[in-house]
Amino acid sequence: MGPEMASSAMTVAALIFSLFSLSNSINTFPLSSHYRSIGRPSPPFPSSLIKPELLKPTISYSSEKVYYEIKYFTQTLDHFNYVPWGYETFQQRYLINSKYWGGPIDKAPIFVYTGNEGDVEWFAQNTGFMFENAPYFKALLVFIEHRYYGESIPYGSEEIAYKNASTHGYLSSAQALADYAMLIIDLKKNLSAEDSPVVVMGGSYGGMLATWFRLKYPHVCIGALASSAPILNFADITSPYSFNNIVTEDFRSESENCYKVIKNSWQKIHETAQQPGGLEELRKSFRICPNYISEDSLTNWLERAFIYTAMTDYPVPSSFLAPLPAFPIEQMCKAVDDAGDEQFKGIYEAANIFYNYTGDSMCFNLSDNSDRHGLNGWGFQACTEMLLATGGRTQESIFPPYTYNYTQTQEYCQQSYGINPRPHWITTHFGGHDIKRVLKRFGSNIIFFNGLRDPWSGGGVLENLSDSIVALVAKEGAHHIDLRFSTEGDPMWLSEVRKREIHILSMWLEQYYKDIA
Amino acid sequence: MGPEMASSAMTVAALIFSLFSLSNSINTFPLSSHYRSIGRPSPPFPSSLIKPELLKPTISYSSEKVYYEIKYFTQTLDHFNYVPWGYETFQQRYLINSKYWGGPIDKAPIFVYTGNEGDVEWFAQNTGFMFENAPYFKALLVFIEHRYYGESIPYGSEEIAYKNASTHGYLSSAQALADYAMLIIDLKKNLSAEDSPVVVMGGSYGGMLATWFRLKYPHVCIGALASSAPILNFADITSPYSFNNIVTEDFRSESENCYKVIKNSWQKIHETAQQPGGLEELRKSFRICPNYISEDSLTNWLERAFIYTAMTDYPVPSSFLAPLPAFPIEQMCKAVDDAGDEQFKGIYEAANIFYNYTGDSMCFNLSDNSDRHGLNGWGFQACTEMLLATGGRTQESIFPPYTYNYTQTQEYCQQSYGINPRPHWITTHFGGHDIKRVLKRFGSNIIFFNGLRDPWSGGGVLENLSDSIVALVAKEGAHHIDLRFSTEGDPMWLSEVRKREIHILSMWLEQYYKDIA
Repeated sequence: MGPEMASSAMTVAALIFSLFSLSNSINTFPLSSHYRSIGRPSPPFPSSLIKPELLKPTISYSSEKVYYEIKYFTQTLDHFNYVPWGYETFQQRYLINSKYWGGPIDKAPIFVYTGNEGDVEWFAQNTGFMFENAPYFKALLVFIEHRYYGESIPYGSEEIAYKNASTHGYLSSAQALADYAMLIIDLKKNLSAEDSPVVVMGGSYGGMLATWFRLKYPHVCIGALASSAPILNFADITSPYSFNNIVTEDFRSESENCYKVIKNSWQKIHETAQQPGGLEELRKSFRICPNYISEDSLTNWLERAFIYTAMTDYPVPSSFLAPLPAFPIEQMCKAVDDAGDEQFKGIYEAANIFYNYTGDSMCFNLSDNSDRHGLNGWGFQACTEMLLATGGRTQESIFPPYTYNYTQTQEYCQQSYGINPRPHWITTHFGGHDIKRVLKRFGSNIIFFNGLRDPWSGGGVLENLSDSIVALVAKEGAHHIDLRFSTEGDPMWLSEVRKREIHILSMWLEQYYKDIA
Repeated sequence: MGPEMASSAMTVAALIFSLFSLSNSINTFPLSSHYRSIGRPSPPFPSSLIKPELLKPTISYSSEKVYYEIKYFTQTLDHFNYVPWGYETFQQRYLINSKYWGGPIDKAPIFVYTGNEGDVEWFAQNTGFMFENAPYFKALLVFIEHRYYGESIPYGSEEIAYKNASTHGYLSSAQALADYAMLIIDLKKNLSAEDSPVVVMGGSYGGMLATWFRLKYPHVCIGALASSAPILNFADITSPYSFNNIVTEDFRSESENCYKVIKNSWQKIHETAQQPGGLEELRKSFRICPNYISEDSLTNWLERAFIYTAMTDYPVPSSFLAPLPAFPIEQMCKAVDDAGDEQFKGIYEAANIFYNYTGDSMCFNLSDNSDRHGLNGWGFQACTEMLLATGGRTQESIFPPYTYNYTQTQEYCQQSYGINPRPHWITTHFGGHDIKRVLKRFGSNIIFFNGLRDPWSGGGVLENLSDSIVALVAKEGAHHIDLRFSTEGDPMWLSEVRKREIHILSMWLEQYYKDIA
């Protein structure tokens, strides 16, 4: 492995890049600033960055903490229409762990992870909460892969499935939920476990799916644990400036100087890039590999570091998106503050924490594989229905200001995929507007966890909607930290959140067993 | 108008015929008896019998009691996929009456009829409950036509839309519900009536849609009035013998002799038909027109009269499917009992009540237009997802015994439409199993009305599921009688049912206004 790609942080960065760079290649955008990347629909969830080729194919997986078998279910391509080609099937992958299961006779519960936009093995391995609590609940664990991700690709190959909207078009959240319903009902039948209660769980987009699954399929699951699920991050509900406001606040609350240095750096980078030899100077300052540099690719690369660090600003060391120290924003700001007046040094050191915490990378490759991952699944979803409104940046933003403009997103999607987004479909189908009134008297048994450091928390449910649709909010938390493996360094509040979740799950189960008694 | 088609009962009979006769033409069915018609998926709801050509095209309609304007909404063909052809649109018809509406400033309510399998004008004209109560509630009335029925035909014409599964395949209940959500949200926006609460209402399949709409789109409506909605009439929930058992009991409870005469008639008809000149004798006995007779077509024609009379066994004169006297089963049985021993006379007189109550028909045409209406919408729905399990007939049945056999339905559907039914899809997507437990703690604000004379009531919700998901059951009631116009002769129990419904609707509205205050 060469020094350029030595760290997993670097690999992740390459994958992140694929999404961000797409819009760079479109030069017709009428952007008001020179930062072309901001016309993109929304920042991807971190989980979209993981591609199946990073994980070895297995028939089962076992580590000290994680164990599962890999199975496949013959899934229907189109659940909602009866056109002949909709009857086509594909192999949907799911992982199953029955090590702790109490079995069908005891009606022991089934915990199902509603897989999101990526390889399901990666989600399983990053959802320690389920493995750690399975013994207590005697729960069967099931992780279902989302259609069009990982190995669960219709038409036999990504090449065909992602080719264009004719084959890619069966990628939708409604289809994914119906997949889960079909698979769970069939699995329970095969296990003679019809009476085993199902609880669904998920983080990020997976948490949105868990929420919606509980709302749309209450006959298939008794409750949902939805972690960092921005189900309200849609047009006319959550401000499109919320996301970047939270990133800004994350840094600013750490150090006013840090915030200012980062905020001012964009103009400095721009001025430097315009000067003769400026790009060379930038290359040297940020240790960019010789093969490629441009102002846009550099600023995108830096922005990503700050955004993803905000999402994963965990109080303990982690290696979710990249190996990171505990409190990485604090570390970044410390680097910025310590650098004093030296041009770009602080910014570089901060980026280095995200991209190269292990210290293995010799230089950073800004052009890596940007087309290989171009037409990935999340990009398509973000351009069809998942119009998470996050692009806006105020004058106060740590990033260059940008007036949120849906038309630009639309143009971007038209040019990238040849399709028109349906920006109101998600709220039409799943709701979101006026959610306090609607769910006050409808539905039950949902936990919404949000950590307020997470830029996605602005689109989350932050207050109880009813007695059993409850919000757990952690001021110091970040993106679905509750679902991660516990560690010795976990702060008290995090242990309390998990205890609370376990307590609520127990209540749901108790109620279920009472109801069927 | 010739004497053959003089009565509207006759016209309806011709339309009914189209559905029943389809299976007759398939001679490969391995039926155990000589009654070939019983391999069909399920008896159609009465409303499927009405075709748009029976109603004159209008831009508005006004009678003493009924008034509406006709409007169109540009609807998306496929809500759940992003394939390019799914973006195609069609004109969805809806009817609107704002005569009594209190308007958006007062947040006056909107009552929406979730149209079922037929021309929406016919439903509006047969849903007096909405017109009669609009003034009290100051409600806007909206009747939305179901896709693929009436004028709401994709692809510009029935000829193309019904051609084969490639174009017909976008006819599904999930798509219909999404249509309603899209239309209602858009309409409210256009009327600046975002704060006006919506209550959905429907009878029969329309009642199933109203129920499911409340369950799937609680953010679009605050409650549902579901009349005679057999949402449980699916495999493994309601017995497939329930439907015909209720028909049997309807007649038997009137007169044991009547039941026996009808029950024994099938064998007598069969024996007569086998004799030389027997069909001629049958033709004379039943006043069948000279153009066509067969044993199967005759028995189908008689069975239909008994089944549809059971559905519409109202305590007041009606002209829903056909002009009928009050208590038509009582009248039929009186005719049978009065006829004494005279071969077929009682049966003929009974059929005459259904087919010729006005006395205009000179003879009955058994072959009328059976192919013109062959591939109608409901037949397709009954062969794809709406697998209402109703075909079984016990040894005690008033009809010839038939052991329910899903495989025959499947073969019928394969041969008729070239498609495989998805018999478990409805319960997978909408639930139904274990409904008492599921809805005890989920959802709210649904009224299920059922009249126990109605053969569909066996698949209805007959007990309260929670404080606000309630069942109103009328021992003497028939198919969605509560939604019909009130008449002077209405029995006390019927007035009480309607009063109760109005009271519950008022409570929902009161609660809503309190919640948003």
